[in-house]
Amino acid sequence: MVLFKDDGMVYKPLEELDFSPSSNETYIKSHVKAPRMAGITIKIFTWLLEIMGFGSSVLYILKRDNLIHKLVSFAKLKEPPAFVPSYPWEDLNEQEVKSIRPDLSPLQQVEEAIDCFPSWERAILNSEYSFRRWTIQDYSRSYTSGETTPLTVAKRLLAVIQESSMPPLRMAFFINYNAEDILKQATESTLRYQNGKPLSILDGIPIAVKDEIDCLPYPTTGGTKWLHKIRPCIEDACCVKHLRSCGAILIGKSNMHELGVGTSGINPHYGAARNPYDINKISGGSSSGSATLVSAGLCPVALGVDGGGSVRMPAALCGVVGFKPGFGRVSHSGVLPLNYTVGMVGVLAATVEDAFIVYAAISSNSPSDHPVSLQPKVDFPLLKFTNSISNIKMAKYGEWFDDCKDEIKNCCYDALDLLSKTYGWRTVETTIPEIEAMRLAHYITIGCECNASLNSHSEKIKRSELGWDARVALTVYASFSSGEYLNAQRVRNRHMQIYAKIFKSADVIVTPTTGVTAYPITKTAVKYGEFDYHNGAALVRYQILGNFLGLPAVTVPVGYDKFGMPIGLQFIGKPRSEATLIHIAFAMQSLCISSYRKPQVFYDLLGKDALRGPTVMEGHQNMLMMPPSTTH
Amino acid sequence: MVLFKDDGMVYKPLEELDFSPSSNETYIKSHVKAPRMAGITIKIFTWLLEIMGFGSSVLYILKRDNLIHKLVSFAKLKEPPAFVPSYPWEDLNEQEVKSIRPDLSPLQQVEEAIDCFPSWERAILNSEYSFRRWTIQDYSRSYTSGETTPLTVAKRLLAVIQESSMPPLRMAFFINYNAEDILKQATESTLRYQNGKPLSILDGIPIAVKDEIDCLPYPTTGGTKWLHKIRPCIEDACCVKHLRSCGAILIGKSNMHELGVGTSGINPHYGAARNPYDINKISGGSSSGSATLVSAGLCPVALGVDGGGSVRMPAALCGVVGFKPGFGRVSHSGVLPLNYTVGMVGVLAATVEDAFIVYAAISSNSPSDHPVSLQPKVDFPLLKFTNSISNIKMAKYGEWFDDCKDEIKNCCYDALDLLSKTYGWRTVETTIPEIEAMRLAHYITIGCECNASLNSHSEKIKRSELGWDARVALTVYASFSSGEYLNAQRVRNRHMQIYAKIFKSADVIVTPTTGVTAYPITKTAVKYGEFDYHNGAALVRYQILGNFLGLPAVTVPVGYDKFGMPIGLQFIGKPRSEATLIHIAFAMQSLCISSYRKPQVFYDLLGKDALRGPTVMEGHQNMLMMPPSTTH
Repeated sequence: MVLFKDDGMVYKPLEELDFSPSSNETYIKSHVKAPRMAGITIKIFTWLLEIMGFGSSVLYILKRDNLIHKLVSFAKLKEPPAFVPSYPWEDLNEQEVKSIRPDLSPLQQVEEAIDCFPSWERAILNSEYSFRRWTIQDYSRSYTSGETTPLTVAKRLLAVIQESSMPPLRMAFFINYNAEDILKQATESTLRYQNGKPLSILDGIPIAVKDEIDCLPYPTTGGTKWLHKIRPCIEDACCVKHLRSCGAILIGKSNMHELGVGTSGINPHYGAARNPYDINKISGGSSSGSATLVSAGLCPVALGVDGGGSVRMPAALCGVVGFKPGFGRVSHSGVLPLNYTVGMVGVLAATVEDAFIVYAAISSNSPSDHPVSLQPKVDFPLLKFTNSISNIKMAKYGEWFDDCKDEIKNCCYDALDLLSKTYGWRTVETTIPEIEAMRLAHYITIGCECNASLNSHSEKIKRSELGWDARVALTVYASFSSGEYLNAQRVRNRHMQIYAKIFKSADVIVTPTTGVTAYPITKTAVKYGEFDYHNGAALVRYQILGNFLGLPAVTVPVGYDKFGMPIGLQFIGKPRSEATLIHIAFAMQSLCISSYRKPQVFYDLLGKDALRGPTVMEGHQNMLMMPPSTTH
Repeated sequence: MVLFKDDGMVYKPLEELDFSPSSNETYIKSHVKAPRMAGITIKIFTWLLEIMGFGSSVLYILKRDNLIHKLVSFAKLKEPPAFVPSYPWEDLNEQEVKSIRPDLSPLQQVEEAIDCFPSWERAILNSEYSFRRWTIQDYSRSYTSGETTPLTVAKRLLAVIQESSMPPLRMAFFINYNAEDILKQATESTLRYQNGKPLSILDGIPIAVKDEIDCLPYPTTGGTKWLHKIRPCIEDACCVKHLRSCGAILIGKSNMHELGVGTSGINPHYGAARNPYDINKISGGSSSGSATLVSAGLCPVALGVDGGGSVRMPAALCGVVGFKPGFGRVSHSGVLPLNYTVGMVGVLAATVEDAFIVYAAISSNSPSDHPVSLQPKVDFPLLKFTNSISNIKMAKYGEWFDDCKDEIKNCCYDALDLLSKTYGWRTVETTIPEIEAMRLAHYITIGCECNASLNSHSEKIKRSELGWDARVALTVYASFSSGEYLNAQRVRNRHMQIYAKIFKSADVIVTPTTGVTAYPITKTAVKYGEFDYHNGAALVRYQILGNFLGLPAVTVPVGYDKFGMPIGLQFIGKPRSEATLIHIAFAMQSLCISSYRKPQVFYDLLGKDALRGPTVMEGHQNMLMMPPSTTH
């Protein structure tokens, strides 16, 4: 009987943990024991798993060999469960941070956000750069000055979408878009500009929405072929309502990994979202479409959802900014409940400022935006902003930080050096215990919650309508006992306390965003999906923390590997420290922006031909430099 | 695979539920399909359940037949989980209620509580009564006036304990008590009175503590033979610290159902706690010892823990007051984690006032009293008191209310009539939907949490050290999947919203406390325990609500059945309405106190011979009327 398992880790009392650099806490490298599979081996493996009894035995062995039993399922620890990563309110004493009144409208919140970047123009427009993407401000200026109109941009966009979805590119940006709806929104926005009355800086800005978030007039597929049939999309999600009220043009539902259960962004039903820096490589997932759209210039910002790195990872792999606010900052209302306690709507953007402006728009301060009980009143978002900041301390755990490809490591160290030399910010060497236990506890949590949520539709799901990797994931998810779920929540409580200690001596934790850069898409993977838990574990290695503990986190592009694939640096903040975190990311970006490179696939929707500079790969041909004719 | 079960209930949207008396929501009588077992059949059943594979199949059938699958495990509902029954703060607009500053000490809180009963003396001391138990005030006056001393009382108590534990009574009040420790505390208290400096009204008051709560110098057994060996008691629980700081004499660890997993109060290791109104009948559980101690006059108040009626049920069966505060009002620090989200320290007392005074003492307003994350800051106790109150509306669901023994029903209706005639309070007929689903969801929740908590000690537990009913319970508890646990939490969210609607048209919900009165203890049950899920379900029928939704609830004795066994009436309040609830209970008590009856077993520790009146059963001999000689 499960009750009497005795091979679990006995965790020491928290007060005995040593966080110093010389600590003898051991770093466990991700302990993935599963073969890489694609094609027919996936099918056979899936069938085996689904055989009652036999499948359970295979799962038992997999869980045992992957340390799930030892570190979580049968672990012995004193902590009671922490079901939700919410924190008692605490004054963070942040520098130059301004609290926002909780009764502001999205429009007013956006105004406040803009006021927070007085040095914005100088930082971006006057800095040296070889390539940059158009920002919200660029669009807004072009509209206001009459250089172009939202309608012109929309028409160019539609042409671009059509072209890029066909060979040779087959970018698979979208699961759904509706030309008529886009043109209607663009026409209305154009009228507002003509009348001199744009709603906000977001008026006329094209914004894509991950197909995990309700947005009319589209169904919400969650990357599947069936979910929208049994869960109709009746109204905009809360965050989409906010954007619409600011005048944004919602350009469609971006591609995603099926049900968000994988990291490659390869969707068996809607195609592999391809990396604009190399269309033969993955985009990362699960917010794959949103990342590629921003990277390729089709919109300055897009919404994603981040339950296990799903915003930050594809952002890093596609060379853009990815920002996941702390748990509960954005309402989950109208977001597919693929999990309950680890996911958060996030923003993918060309620049840190744009991520912040859109965060300001979608951030939910009103109690009615939040579901009962998951989000107690005290924890409602307190939007905070900052103008200047100094003396930042960045916690870094060497063994963890270094557990990535050499090129990533070197690039991230260079970035830290830049920060230190320019601003005098200090890196604090720390030991962060039990990282692998946290990763596994998060895996159990997101798996159990996904399974419980989908169970409500179980009678209508046909296995044959699922991709192979989703089938395997759901079988594993359904296998966890209540004891495993509850032990995972006890591990969460433990880690909430561990990180509270780490944050006593540092303002942020700094890590690479991913352990590997984008890797090639194989032909069989496009057809059947793939199981690549090794690369998968490396991709999410540094991001789980933000999800499981509900902490805000942001990735900023800081360089490229030898193939020209982007590398991101991640900052993870204290609960409710979004403002400071954004400032740090802004500072990092301003030091790197001059060397940003143009992707292989890139479109200039403003038609200004001002996006200078070399493209990523010497010797690689740019697929496109300018959008095709827009006279349709 | 579990994922594709399709026999679950499809719950309708909340807004379609009809709460009117004429609603067509059906009341499902507790659907218990399990044989009553005792003796050898228990052993065989236990062995069968523990056979891997075969046991699973038996459990599957039991869960299916008992509607667990249909109403919870495979139910389809839209609500996300609510893991913890905490509520956003809301002004209740209660009448004559006073909020207490959160920085008061236990001593100051007790002072405030006493001030809340100005009419106290008139209500109790001058009212007509045939029998009453000594109250805190009686003890305190006797000590202050010098009529007796805490030391004298302690010596009498020790003699009583010794005598009552032997044949013919074999009351099994305690799992542990230490004469030396009791006399030491009593001597110190006596000195304080001699110096004219008692610490508070609680100084010298004998208080028993359920053996689920840490209290030095005793081990905390949880009613087992092993738990204390692997989880040493290092310090007083938070609530016990509070009582000690007020001068209370902690007289030992009261008996309880093993691990709190049953309702009979029959403990195979420490004996059956016997009902003072008939020593051949059960006391109810799991806070069995605490209820019997107060009932038999050994202390005016005792602490219990209520995870599924465990304070209110034995209180009702033993004819005393049982008060369970709302979730989180008393710190769980130092309480055995037999569950995480449904249990609450409660008070068993001779009178409502005494329950309130001790609640004031143990109530935790300081953040440091509460564990991280389970108890968000906004929800810390706001102690509130009331002096006068009018126009109370009591919600009553007829079909549910009437689902009990006729004698209980009639007695409870009489009590409601009294309230209505005396105070003009109105009963509001209501339909409360889905009660059985809530009961089952609570069962899954408490089971999963007990299992997860005990798993931390699993390597050290020997099955042979467990009683038979505990073995079966733990096997069932370990069988639940994460999907079942999470669905139970979704049902909880649904019911938090259902009751919010009910409380819009009523101040309290009123029910009988139990569906049956105390029933006979069989010989085999004493030896092997018993499975009597029919009586068990009837005993907890009305109490689960308070636990699963974290609502405050109180039981008041209102009469006796034809065998003279006590009957309780229960009031369940809104979140944070403890003050109003106590006032209502006080009003009810003042109407019934004149007809309270003396138990078969009763001791007068103050030696005043002032406890008048007839005993319970005509024709039954009183076992004892006065304590034995105290000259030891």
